[in-house]
Amino acid sequence: MAEKSYEEEHPTKAFGWAARDQSGVLSPFKFSRRSTGEKDVRFKVLFCGICHSDLHMAKNEWGTSIYPLVPGHEIVGEVTEVGSKVEKFKVGDKVGVGCMVGSCHSCDSCNNDLENYCPKMILTYSTKYHDGTTTYGGYSDSMVTDEHFVVRIPDNLPLDAAAPLLCAGITVYSPLRFFNLDKPGMHVGVVGLGGLGHVAVKFAKAMGVKVTVISTSPKKKQEALERLGADSFLVSRDQDEMQAAMGTMDGVIDTVSAMHPILPLISLLKTQGKLVLVGAPEKPLELPVFPLIMGRKIVGGSCIGGMKETQEMIDFAAKNNITADIEVISMDYVNTAMERLLKTDVRYRFVIDIGNTMKI
Amino acid sequence: MAEKSYEEEHPTKAFGWAARDQSGVLSPFKFSRRSTGEKDVRFKVLFCGICHSDLHMAKNEWGTSIYPLVPGHEIVGEVTEVGSKVEKFKVGDKVGVGCMVGSCHSCDSCNNDLENYCPKMILTYSTKYHDGTTTYGGYSDSMVTDEHFVVRIPDNLPLDAAAPLLCAGITVYSPLRFFNLDKPGMHVGVVGLGGLGHVAVKFAKAMGVKVTVISTSPKKKQEALERLGADSFLVSRDQDEMQAAMGTMDGVIDTVSAMHPILPLISLLKTQGKLVLVGAPEKPLELPVFPLIMGRKIVGGSCIGGMKETQEMIDFAAKNNITADIEVISMDYVNTAMERLLKTDVRYRFVIDIGNTMKI
Repeated sequence: MAEKSYEEEHPTKAFGWAARDQSGVLSPFKFSRRSTGEKDVRFKVLFCGICHSDLHMAKNEWGTSIYPLVPGHEIVGEVTEVGSKVEKFKVGDKVGVGCMVGSCHSCDSCNNDLENYCPKMILTYSTKYHDGTTTYGGYSDSMVTDEHFVVRIPDNLPLDAAAPLLCAGITVYSPLRFFNLDKPGMHVGVVGLGGLGHVAVKFAKAMGVKVTVISTSPKKKQEALERLGADSFLVSRDQDEMQAAMGTMDGVIDTVSAMHPILPLISLLKTQGKLVLVGAPEKPLELPVFPLIMGRKIVGGSCIGGMKETQEMIDFAAKNNITADIEVISMDYVNTAMERLLKTDVRYRFVIDIGNTMKI
Repeated sequence: MAEKSYEEEHPTKAFGWAARDQSGVLSPFKFSRRSTGEKDVRFKVLFCGICHSDLHMAKNEWGTSIYPLVPGHEIVGEVTEVGSKVEKFKVGDKVGVGCMVGSCHSCDSCNNDLENYCPKMILTYSTKYHDGTTTYGGYSDSMVTDEHFVVRIPDNLPLDAAAPLLCAGITVYSPLRFFNLDKPGMHVGVVGLGGLGHVAVKFAKAMGVKVTVISTSPKKKQEALERLGADSFLVSRDQDEMQAAMGTMDGVIDTVSAMHPILPLISLLKTQGKLVLVGAPEKPLELPVFPLIMGRKIVGGSCIGGMKETQEMIDFAAKNNITADIEVISMDYVNTAMERLLKTDVRYRFVIDIGNTMKI
C-alpha cells in the first residue's frame, strides 16, 4: 500500500534509487513526479554526482531524513518539457539543478539573490515541497523543477564532469567571491583535497590567486602541484612547514568536515585574514580567541550559493574550462561507490551515468 | 643597587606606582624617563584609567610581565615639552596616550595606519622599547612619547572621563567601523555592560544604530535603557527572551573575557551577521560550525585601533559628547580599586586622579 502510494502520489511515473532506512543501502524505487507546472522545467536526468552529504542523508546522520530517500543534488540533464510560463528554457536545453528547488521568494535573503539562506529554502531531496509532498533527488530518471532553480549548462562543458559544480563547485566559488579572496595576487589556502577542495584549487587559480593546498596526506603533493596547478603544498602535520608559512595567507577555504584543529589554519593567515569553513564537523571546534583579536582575523561559514551566483559560477567554469575530476559509474555501482567514498577512495567525485545505466 | 638603577637608567627622574611581583600589589616606585627626543612629546599625567588588563598584567596572568611594572594605558595629561621635530603638539596641549607607544613603521600594517597590528608594536608598559629599556605606563607623574602615538584631546572633553576612551573606547569603536556595524538603522548587540560595553552602547547609539544590551544580570536593565540609552535589553540566561530575539541583529560586540557560550550570540545574528570578540577568554571557546555555515555568519576579533583611527574616535566622541562613566579615585586607593574591579564593583571605569593625588 505504502509503496503503491509513492507511484500514485503524482500523475507522472518516475524511477530512481532510494535508501529505505538508516543502513543507507540504495535500491530501485518506483515513485512519481508532478505534472509540469506553468513555471516548471521537466528534464531527463543524464548524470548525477555523489556528494558526501548524500551519504549522510541516506544514513540519516543529520536526523532529518525522510524515507524512502532518493539522493542526488548535482544533477544535469536535457529538457523534455517546459511549462507555459517558462521563460529561460526550451526543450533540448542542457540544464542543471543543485541543492535546492524552492524558497519563499519574499524574505531579505530571497530578495538579495540568496535563496540559499532563505529560512524556507527547500532542499532538492528529503524535504517537504510547497505542495506538502516530499522532494526526491537526482538518482532518478527525471526531474521537474521550478525554472528559478534550474541553471543553464554552457555547451562547452562536458555534462558528466560539470555535474559536481552544482554543489561542490558553488560551495567553494561563493566564499572566494563573497569574502573577497578572488583578487589576482592574493594567496589562498585550500584545506582538504577532496570533491570540494580540488575544485576550489581550480577556481582560485582561474581567479589569478596563488593557491596553497594544505593536507594531512603528503601523497597528494605531486597531484596538487602537477595535476591541479596549485602553487605550493603544506603537510598540515609538518610543524616546520606550517611554521614557515605563518602569516602568509589572505584567506583559507577549509573543506574538511572531520574534527580538526583550526588554530594552525588561523596562524597561516595574515592580519585581517579569513578562515572560511565549508565543511561542517558534527561537534563544535575549538576557537582560540587571542589569535583572532591580535590579527583582526575572522572565522566564517558559507553554504552553497544563490541561483544567480550559481549560474555565474557555471558560466565562469565554462569560460575557464573548469570541471571536476570524476570517476563515472553505473547506477548499480552506487552502493559500492558510497563505501569507497567513506574511505575517500575517489579522485575526486563519483558521477552516476544515469542516462545510460538507470534501468527499471 | 637594582632599585637605584631604575632611577639612573634615564636622565630624568620619574615617579609612579608599580607592581613588584605576581601579588599585583602596587606601591610607590622611583624610576626615570628618557630625555625628550626630537620627535617626543613630554607631558604631565593628569588622569589614568584602570583597565582590566592592568590587573592581568600586574599579576603576570598573561606571562609577559616585566617587574617592576607601572601599569596604565588610558593616559591623559598636559604637554610640558616637545622635541625639535614635533609637528602636531605644543606646550600646554591636552593629549592622550593609549595602549601602544611604538611600532616598526615599515610593515603592511603600519603602512595602512594599523600600528596596532604591527608585529613589532610596543606596548605602553612592560615591553622593551626601541632603545632596549622597559616601558612604564601612566600610573606615573609624566610620560615621554613619540608624537606618532599621542592623540589630541579636544577642548570640550573632560579629561578624567575621556581617559578610558584611549583603550576601552577605541576597542569598541574600531570594530563597529571596520565590520560595517555603524550604519543608521542597523541593530547591534553589546554583550557585557562593563568598561567596554557601556562605551560601545554610547558609540553605537551616536552612529544611529539600534542597540540591544545582552547581560547575565537583570539588574542592569534599567541602567542600560535609561542611563545609557540602549533600545532594549536581553538577559542572556532567559531562553525565552533570547529565542524571541533570534535572527534580529546585524552584529554583536562581545566584550566578555570570561568563558561563555557563543552559540546563543551567533543565533541572535541575521544571515551574514557578525559576532566580534574584543574580550579574550584564556581558553578556546566552543565554535559551532553549522550555524556559521547556514547563515554565512562570521566570528571575528578586533584589538584596539590604529593611531589615525584613535584620533578619529576621540574627535567623534567630542562631537557627540561621549565619555566614559567613571569613578575618580586617588592614587593611594589603587589597590582597593583593583580588588573592587575583580568583583566588577565599579560603574564603569576607575580613573586615577594622578595630577592631584600622586605624591612622592
